[in-house]
Amino acid sequence: MPVGTAGTVKAVHTRELEADIQAQIILGNTYHLYLRPGLEVLRQAGGLHRFNGWSKPILTDSGGYQVFSLAQSRKITEEGVTFKSHIDGSKHLFTPEGVMDIERTIGADIIMAFDECPPYPSTYAYAEQSMQLTHRWLKRCIERVDQTEPHYGYAQSLFPIVQGSTYKDLRAQSAEFIASCEREGNAIGGLSVGEPAEMMYEMTDHVNRILPRDKPRYLMGVGTPANILENIALGVDMFDCVMPTRNARNGMLFTTEGIINIRNEKWKSDFSPIDSGFPSYVSQFYSKAYLRHLVISKEILASQIASIHNLSFYLWLVGEARAQIQAGTFAGWKNRMVEVVSRRL
Amino acid sequence: MPVGTAGTVKAVHTRELEADIQAQIILGNTYHLYLRPGLEVLRQAGGLHRFNGWSKPILTDSGGYQVFSLAQSRKITEEGVTFKSHIDGSKHLFTPEGVMDIERTIGADIIMAFDECPPYPSTYAYAEQSMQLTHRWLKRCIERVDQTEPHYGYAQSLFPIVQGSTYKDLRAQSAEFIASCEREGNAIGGLSVGEPAEMMYEMTDHVNRILPRDKPRYLMGVGTPANILENIALGVDMFDCVMPTRNARNGMLFTTEGIINIRNEKWKSDFSPIDSGFPSYVSQFYSKAYLRHLVISKEILASQIASIHNLSFYLWLVGEARAQIQAGTFAGWKNRMVEVVSRRL
Repeated sequence: MPVGTAGTVKAVHTRELEADIQAQIILGNTYHLYLRPGLEVLRQAGGLHRFNGWSKPILTDSGGYQVFSLAQSRKITEEGVTFKSHIDGSKHLFTPEGVMDIERTIGADIIMAFDECPPYPSTYAYAEQSMQLTHRWLKRCIERVDQTEPHYGYAQSLFPIVQGSTYKDLRAQSAEFIASCEREGNAIGGLSVGEPAEMMYEMTDHVNRILPRDKPRYLMGVGTPANILENIALGVDMFDCVMPTRNARNGMLFTTEGIINIRNEKWKSDFSPIDSGFPSYVSQFYSKAYLRHLVISKEILASQIASIHNLSFYLWLVGEARAQIQAGTFAGWKNRMVEVVSRRL
Repeated sequence: MPVGTAGTVKAVHTRELEADIQAQIILGNTYHLYLRPGLEVLRQAGGLHRFNGWSKPILTDSGGYQVFSLAQSRKITEEGVTFKSHIDGSKHLFTPEGVMDIERTIGADIIMAFDECPPYPSTYAYAEQSMQLTHRWLKRCIERVDQTEPHYGYAQSLFPIVQGSTYKDLRAQSAEFIASCEREGNAIGGLSVGEPAEMMYEMTDHVNRILPRDKPRYLMGVGTPANILENIALGVDMFDCVMPTRNARNGMLFTTEGIINIRNEKWKSDFSPIDSGFPSYVSQFYSKAYLRHLVISKEILASQIASIHNLSFYLWLVGEARAQIQAGTFAGWKNRMVEVVSRRL
């Protein structure tokens, strides 16, 4: 899922998401949308789909992660989290019930439960206590969602989130509890927050042995192309990450040949396409030398081209993974591709 | 002509210039392109068209205007102008011959003569002396262009530039001289540099009575939609201006209803299209409220949408002007439109 933080996948037109990137679903950040444009505007617009013109599915996170990473003066209680806006310092309270109402108003098709995402590393005691809080909050989220109606005439699915930091027994406990809630999909949170990749894979593997196979398993906030391929091998079905767009804006390209830092002098007179290895108009129309010139000159078009390219590549990669799974050839392909996509050119 | 300063019309994809904006020609700035990506890269690419993928005509200015407005420590002599790059402080010399060679290497279809653009106001003595220098430089430009060949297999037309500041007799002298050079098109420079609009119109009118009617007359660096309509009435055929793109990036929109400052609170919940008054996908797909949200949130997509919209509007406006001229209804239409497009909404 391309990340559309404030109702826009940065530097990408809505029609480009559909036609070039061929995204099937995008993510919106509840924290950002709640602060700007705010619920009143979104309600009047008829929800986020109507506001930004994206007619395919949208998933919203719960805002919890941003409250912990962006907001100021946050304070966690049983009731919820109070915080100050990073924009104007105004004070707000997010509760499980309140966030469910907010996500209903945003109008996402998939709404994430309100959870606490403990930092890495966390002590066992903190991780356990935080997981228990997330579970109690989940019950309140479920109750609220089940007692309220969608605002705009289409269903909204609540996905609960497995926590438990890097402790296998906590992860197992959490996965059992999340699975027992029997919602339409399940998520794994609290990973890709600084722990080694091997530790992330160990947790994903462990959790996915418990979460039902016949429902989507969504690993939140992951990751590099290699991370995604390894986690697909472990049974993950859905991903979101700012990496393809954020790194694009810094001149880092993910390609079918490996990773390119387009600022590098070596691309100055390389007039070959950005990436001719998969069918994408933008990646084949513009050359490496031209994109490098735009990045060096701080031109907006640089972010536009690189964002479309990276997102197209990510979507192509997961599409290929699906085709390889269906063909029964995934394992060998994955091992070769992990090497290729991790290579620095 | 949309302005593509450093080989990119800011925030606009090449295909959008063709399909959405329907530009027939774009402008490149010699000063910027000479400094970045530099002539070596452009030569290796096979010229600017090959470098940025724009296959329709390109016009390049001579760099003179930027040398005076952007560069540091500039010094004018009979030979040319020495200046320091605004990027890295490196020292350069632009001469009429050198600039012709540079524009040949960039590969523009229309190359502008190297001139001095005197500031407003200028004394009569300075304006006259500067005009004489521009005329002497023009002779050298013509000689160089006529003695050299295009680099990439297609013709390159040199347009000379009328100067003379705001003095009618100097403008007349300059126009006579420029017309006598009998090039394929002629330009009017040194206007829209701070003088009142009425004074600009007086000069354009005066000059256009002398410049041949059967060749394109190009008014450089103009202007607002009203400026453009008034100058079309005075016989101008070609324009370039950064206004549609620069103002777009600041949230100012030119529309068929008037001028919109999209930051204004009044657009917060206005879900009507940016402009439904002319056929443009982007202007009709996105709402005023959504664009306002993007501008307030400093999202890159704001610049993208507003730039496409403003350029589409400018190109639609001049297309309409042409149709009205052909229908013999231009004068009345122009007077009504000048009022509409000058209105602040």
